Amino acid sequence: MAIENFTTYNPVKLHFGKGIVSGLGKSTAKYGKKVLLIYGKGSVKKYGYYNQVVEQLKSAGLEIVEYPGIKPNPVIEDVRMATDLGRRENIDVIVALGGGSVIDSAKIIAIAMASGYDGWDIMKYRVKPENAIPLLCVLTLAATGTEMNAGAVVQNHDTGEKIGFVNDLNFPKESFLDPAFTASVPKNYTVYGIVDLIAHALEFYFGEGEPPVIDAITFEIIKDAMHYGPGLLDNLENIDLRANIMLDATLALNGLTRYGKKNGDWGVHAIGHELSLLYDMPHGASLSIVYIAWLTLQKDRIPARIQNLGNHLFGVDTVNETIAALKTFFQSINAPVNLTDEGIGEDQKEIIINQLNKNEASGMHHQLNDEDRLEIVNTMFYQ
Amino acid sequence: MAIENFTTYNPVKLHFGKGIVSGLGKSTAKYGKKVLLIYGKGSVKKYGYYNQVVEQLKSAGLEIVEYPGIKPNPVIEDVRMATDLGRRENIDVIVALGGGSVIDSAKIIAIAMASGYDGWDIMKYRVKPENAIPLLCVLTLAATGTEMNAGAVVQNHDTGEKIGFVNDLNFPKESFLDPAFTASVPKNYTVYGIVDLIAHALEFYFGEGEPPVIDAITFEIIKDAMHYGPGLLDNLENIDLRANIMLDATLALNGLTRYGKKNGDWGVHAIGHELSLLYDMPHGASLSIVYIAWLTLQKDRIPARIQNLGNHLFGVDTVNETIAALKTFFQSINAPVNLTDEGIGEDQKEIIINQLNKNEASGMHHQLNDEDRLEIVNTMFYQ
Repeated sequence: MAIENFTTYNPVKLHFGKGIVSGLGKSTAKYGKKVLLIYGKGSVKKYGYYNQVVEQLKSAGLEIVEYPGIKPNPVIEDVRMATDLGRRENIDVIVALGGGSVIDSAKIIAIAMASGYDGWDIMKYRVKPENAIPLLCVLTLAATGTEMNAGAVVQNHDTGEKIGFVNDLNFPKESFLDPAFTASVPKNYTVYGIVDLIAHALEFYFGEGEPPVIDAITFEIIKDAMHYGPGLLDNLENIDLRANIMLDATLALNGLTRYGKKNGDWGVHAIGHELSLLYDMPHGASLSIVYIAWLTLQKDRIPARIQNLGNHLFGVDTVNETIAALKTFFQSINAPVNLTDEGIGEDQKEIIINQLNKNEASGMHHQLNDEDRLEIVNTMFYQ
Repeated sequence: MAIENFTTYNPVKLHFGKGIVSGLGKSTAKYGKKVLLIYGKGSVKKYGYYNQVVEQLKSAGLEIVEYPGIKPNPVIEDVRMATDLGRRENIDVIVALGGGSVIDSAKIIAIAMASGYDGWDIMKYRVKPENAIPLLCVLTLAATGTEMNAGAVVQNHDTGEKIGFVNDLNFPKESFLDPAFTASVPKNYTVYGIVDLIAHALEFYFGEGEPPVIDAITFEIIKDAMHYGPGLLDNLENIDLRANIMLDATLALNGLTRYGKKNGDWGVHAIGHELSLLYDMPHGASLSIVYIAWLTLQKDRIPARIQNLGNHLFGVDTVNETIAALKTFFQSINAPVNLTDEGIGEDQKEIIINQLNKNEASGMHHQLNDEDRLEIVNTMFYQ
């Protein structure tokens, strides 16, 4: 059957639109009195988002404790320190103000605080937590979809791992998506967000199962991002265009693109995470490079599936044309397509291959072995 | 802004696929020991669905109390009697086995049982219920989307009303969608289901707001139904085709098509409900008739929106071609497009107009007045 058996569940209450953060105070107050406000570096203060959020929380009579400084590729040390702070302060509810890094960290902090377990033990599935502190999110970057899903990615430099953790406890209670809160995202990170959302849609498209209506919906999400993305890059403060990309990013990874599938693939993400870990490369930048190489590896293995993609996205008929058209799109928005674009030379080849093999970077549907990884790495330098 | 502000929330856990009811017992047992099993007329017994459900519940050690006989256009009397039975028997959890009528009734029964309020007072928003008995659904008809939404429609012959009630308390906890459970739906009700799901998608398309990616997704849901529907009607027991239509019906009304919109329109449904009330006409049969007349009324008011629909669904360029193409599609699957197709003659015109005006049948975005209703009724006889 083309539609595979599936179960879907997503209890996140999502608020979307300009000025929507005006409901944050009231929503947060439903969950308690004392808030742990988690955010990243200074940009949320610089552009006034921090002030709007604090004003909302204060006007609802809430007490605020802050944990700032979450890093763009979030690290387990911050999760641990914020968890300790939250426990000491007897926090009732967490508000995460930021992009994927801040929200993903907050998800693990929420579980660690409530369960008493260590964050990395949670990430590694070594323990079975049963509850989480309520989490509300205010999104400042359209990219990862974390605002409306049960996933979180955190890295650990001690063990040399950047891994994902999926659990229903990760679901935020509510998320607030004001496209105006993404208007200050610089051009390069706007590009990475567009690449990331397209990659999420593709990871599900290349998972197991070919449900026709979901394939069609997945194409429409990608096409919307490809249609409005370039215009946004020329006009970064256009809120309507920001809104289109923001909605696309949520739709790409809120479970919808997984309907009728046994799984997603996630092989490209697995490799991308290793590159981010080695070179602190932005997540989206790694994905445009890896996707081209992954498709090249797969082109004789799943030609019909790749052709179908190319046909719907670009109106082309062959596997090679599909890969070329995707590469051309990435290049047109200045997303990197070679490791050399990111300043990583061939002298790094051995290091990358060893890293990928050590962590057995692979997909769920299309599994990769050492030979496959070697071929992908060789391709990624000059494609 | 083309994307309107919106809030979305849908906590239903949906299980989809062949054999998926094998998880029903375990899921139901999470919510209690004593089950009220609600279903309709004999067909669920005739085709073995009843036996599968009862076996599941018994194997999970659950005690079963039954309320059979919910009518195809469900009536408030059944809601009241089932509520009384449930209260007397101290029911913990409700399992609804059926289509929209059974599940919609069960939603109100679940709220009436837990809140102590009368079902019709709930439907009329005269009371503010705060809880509901947990409800699990096993769907036997792909049509209304009720399995994954917060709506319910029930009629009251005493007051001459068929109305909808929307409340988060209506959400089922879990729903089980096995396309094989719809394989015995006769041809005419399969047609009505296809019409119903298309009408739901259209109601949102004609609501306030024009979010590009959601418009595109809405078109894909309709196109999928138009693509697989006719084949299914020639091959009613094809489970793969049943699965496509079943998934389309859920997607058309689970909230997705409302993203980025202020509302749906629902004017066509409002009129269709009155026809069902007057003539016990199947819901889907009323919608194909009313939609053509409604579009005819609107064709000079919202030509661009109608043209855009026709362009994406049928590749046509004008309003008239769009309406004609939709009518041709309905006729091709033997859905009625005139009241006379349903044996309702012009002698009924006065009665219909009075009924529509009495209940002020209208849409939320495109409001209808007496003149509009007159024009729609006049059109519905010979179009």
